[in-house]
Order: sequence, then C-alpha cells, then structure tokens
Amino acid sequence: MTRIRMVVAYEGTEFCGWQVQPADRTVQGELERALHTILGREVRVHGSGRTDSGVHALGQTVHFDVPDGRPGFPWRRSLNAILPRDVRVLDAAPAPGDFHARYGAVSKTYEYCLWHEREFCLPQRRRFVWDCGPVDFARMEAAAKALTGEHDFAAFQNVGTDVGSTVRTVTDISRHVGATAHESVWRFTADGFLKQMIRNLVGCLVACGRGKLGVDEVRAILESGDRTLAPATVPPQGLTLVRVEYGPDN
Amino acid sequence: MTRIRMVVAYEGTEFCGWQVQPADRTVQGELERALHTILGREVRVHGSGRTDSGVHALGQTVHFDVPDGRPGFPWRRSLNAILPRDVRVLDAAPAPGDFHARYGAVSKTYEYCLWHEREFCLPQRRRFVWDCGPVDFARMEAAAKALTGEHDFAAFQNVGTDVGSTVRTVTDISRHVGATAHESVWRFTADGFLKQMIRNLVGCLVACGRGKLGVDEVRAILESGDRTLAPATVPPQGLTLVRVEYGPDN
Repeated sequence: MTRIRMVVAYEGTEFCGWQVQPADRTVQGELERALHTILGREVRVHGSGRTDSGVHALGQTVHFDVPDGRPGFPWRRSLNAILPRDVRVLDAAPAPGDFHARYGAVSKTYEYCLWHEREFCLPQRRRFVWDCGPVDFARMEAAAKALTGEHDFAAFQNVGTDVGSTVRTVTDISRHVGATAHESVWRFTADGFLKQMIRNLVGCLVACGRGKLGVDEVRAILESGDRTLAPATVPPQGLTLVRVEYGPDN
Repeated sequence: MTRIRMVVAYEGTEFCGWQVQPADRTVQGELERALHTILGREVRVHGSGRTDSGVHALGQTVHFDVPDGRPGFPWRRSLNAILPRDVRVLDAAPAPGDFHARYGAVSKTYEYCLWHEREFCLPQRRRFVWDCGPVDFARMEAAAKALTGEHDFAAFQNVGTDVGSTVRTVTDISRHVGATAHESVWRFTADGFLKQMIRNLVGCLVACGRGKLGVDEVRAILESGDRTLAPATVPPQGLTLVRVEYGPDN
C-alpha cells in the first residue's frame, strides 16, 4: 500500500465544488474517475478541505492510497493525460503512510480578488474577480487588522457544518497587487477556515471599504458570534485556495 | 450625425472572431445588436481590423455613426448594461467626423502568451496561452531581431485576403514577463499585420526556440516570400490585440 500526495490546481467555474456528488461535476469526482481509469478500481481521494462551487485552486493538496504500490508510476503525467483541462496535477509523489491531506494541514492560504472599476469588468478577468467597485483600502486594512488573530469566528460561519469549535487563528490578512491595475488581492492565512468564512470576511471588509461599517462595528460583530449581524457572503469566483502547509514531519 | 469612437475588450473564446456572420456569434455582431436595441435601427460598427476566432482584445478600437447625435448619451454604461459579459466597452467618446477606426490606424500592438512548463498548463491560464513547452529565449530573440523592420511578409501571410502590398514595417518584437512564472509574452508592433501574420511569426520564433530553425533560415524564409517554407500557424488563444494607435489628428 502506497500513499500518494498531490498538489492540484483547478478552475472552479464549471465545477459544483470539490466534493463528490452523485449527479454533479466535481473536482474530487473527476480525480476519482481518472484514477479508476488507471487502476481499474475505485479509489477515494482525500482533499485538504472542500471548496465551494465556483471557487478555484492553485494548490489544493490531496492524498490517496494505491493498493499495489506501482513504484515509479508517472502519476502526474498519466492523470493529466486523462483529466479534463480545468483540473491539473501540478505535483505528485509518494508520501509517508500517515500523511493526511486534511488532518495534517497546519495552515491554509486563500486569496480573494476584487475588481474596483465601476464602469466595466474586463472579460478576461470576469471568472476570477468580484466586481465590487471602488473601495477605501485604508478602511479595509484597519478592519483586517481587527479580524487578525485568534478569535471565535462564529459570526463569519455559514450554516451547514458540524465543526466543534469555531475558534480559529488568522495569522495574516493582507492586501497585494492584482493582475491588472483595477484589482486588489486579499490574502488570508489561518490554521483553518469555517464554512464560507473567507467570503464572509471579504463581505465585511468591503462593507468597511464602502464606508458602511466601521472597525468598532466589525469588533462588535466578531464578539457577538451572530452571523445575522455580519454582511452577506460574497460571490465565489473571486476566491482561490493558494497553498496548504503541513507540519515538519510531512 | 455624430461619430462615436470606442475602445472595446473581449475574451475571444466563445466568439467566432470579430466580423459579423449570419449564423455565428461574433463581437461585431454583438455590438451591432446592442446598438440596435438602443437606437431601434441598424448601425454598422467599424473595427480597426478583424480578429480571428478565439483571439482576444484589450484595446480593439471601433467607430459608428449616430444619425440623431444623442449628445451626452452614456454609451459605455448603456452598452455594457446590454452586452454579454465577454465583451465590454472600456471607453466611448464623440470623435471627429473623419475619424476612421480602420483607415486611421497608424500602428497596432498585439501580444502572444506562451506557456513553457511541459507537465501541465494551469487551468486558469488555458484560454490565454499556447502551451508550447520549453524554448530557448535567446534563439527566439535573435530570430525576432531578423524579422523586425520593413520587409515583405508574404511568407507569413495565410491565404484568403485581398491586400495589395504584403510589405509591412514591424517596429517591435520583444519578450516580456508573463502573468505566471511559466509564461513569456511576445509583443508585436507594426503599421499593420497581414492575415494571421503574428500567429505565423510566433510559429517561426518557437521553431527557433526549439532549435529546429536558425536565424539564417528565418532570413531565407522571409526573403523567399513562400508561405509553405515557414512553420505552421500557431493556435489563436495566445493572441490579444492590445492597442491601436492613431495619428495626431485623432
């Protein structure tokens, strides 16, 4: 039995998210189908976590087990020859038997791209940005600072999960240069994220950037733990899972 | 009668090129349809030139005439409210009555994006690059230098046009940094380009970059004027019309 670890990229536009579903096209479903073609048997692919419908990935990390080992088998090349073009294996290698893509993850980094020009959104960027219009970056960065650190993020979690604790440690929320002059990129790193937490945090940051919310109100929302007080979840297509980090043993 | 000049961007993926056609979806067709919705009459939109099926634009320039003038009408906002999301008006303004998007153009700039990583092409970039694999940039740049200047580019023109002269002056062929570390961007500026000339020039450059052609052979192909001696036309999706320049009167 050999455990294989892979880094996978996908464009989420035409996927109903990560997790396998009976009727819908999903990333996990495409990976498992391709492995079935190669191995002639069903194989479960474990991801570092689910991504929602429309969310992209540059560095989703996954693992699966190959019963007969197949030493030296060219997983990357073979899977990329079978997979549809909107999902690609960037890296594949044997991993320790106790490596686990989900439980071994110690931090994740996502990026959310905003489009700020009110009059148009560039067609080439429409699948990768939310066109929220003009915002005040300084106000957003003040709110980002208030949200960074160890907090109970219950106010930023959507329903439909069964996690125990809603406490997470966000180590970074920072603004970066976008692909065009009309964009900004917001990077989020944490030990983990709750369901749609980043899309809810971005909704809060943009409300601040539009002058509709102040830092004190952001602190009050965070402390309330009340989802209904925080701004609405923003669209998925601005979001990309960039990187998953594992401990020194992996 | 007022002449309106506009700068238009589009993602060419789902268009059968620029030029209006009876059955197919084209950029000119979508613009003319949107103008018909606004004006209630047929209006011809003149572009700086055609782009092929699958070719993108960041700065296609167009003009059209509005019989009743409509001073102060918000063309950009109104058209963007009607147009499909893969074509956008970036700028619109009244122009002198003798401005002509095609005949007034004094130079055009295109960019072609190459993807060099052999093992995968990032899904997010697949609509905008040609994944030609590894190449030697120095060899390509030597060939680019030989192709720059005033030449008869008959060897790089595909059939199906009725141009008089095949002499063009290419003022720039240069390499630029791509959107990711796996890409290079090749910028072409000239007083005009023949049919599929850039995609034929890129085919020639990449053949040099792969070591299959030398600079002396490139010069010989250019001098021969024989299309059959030059490498094949490369795919359209790497190509973007970036900018059209007009004379000082416009």
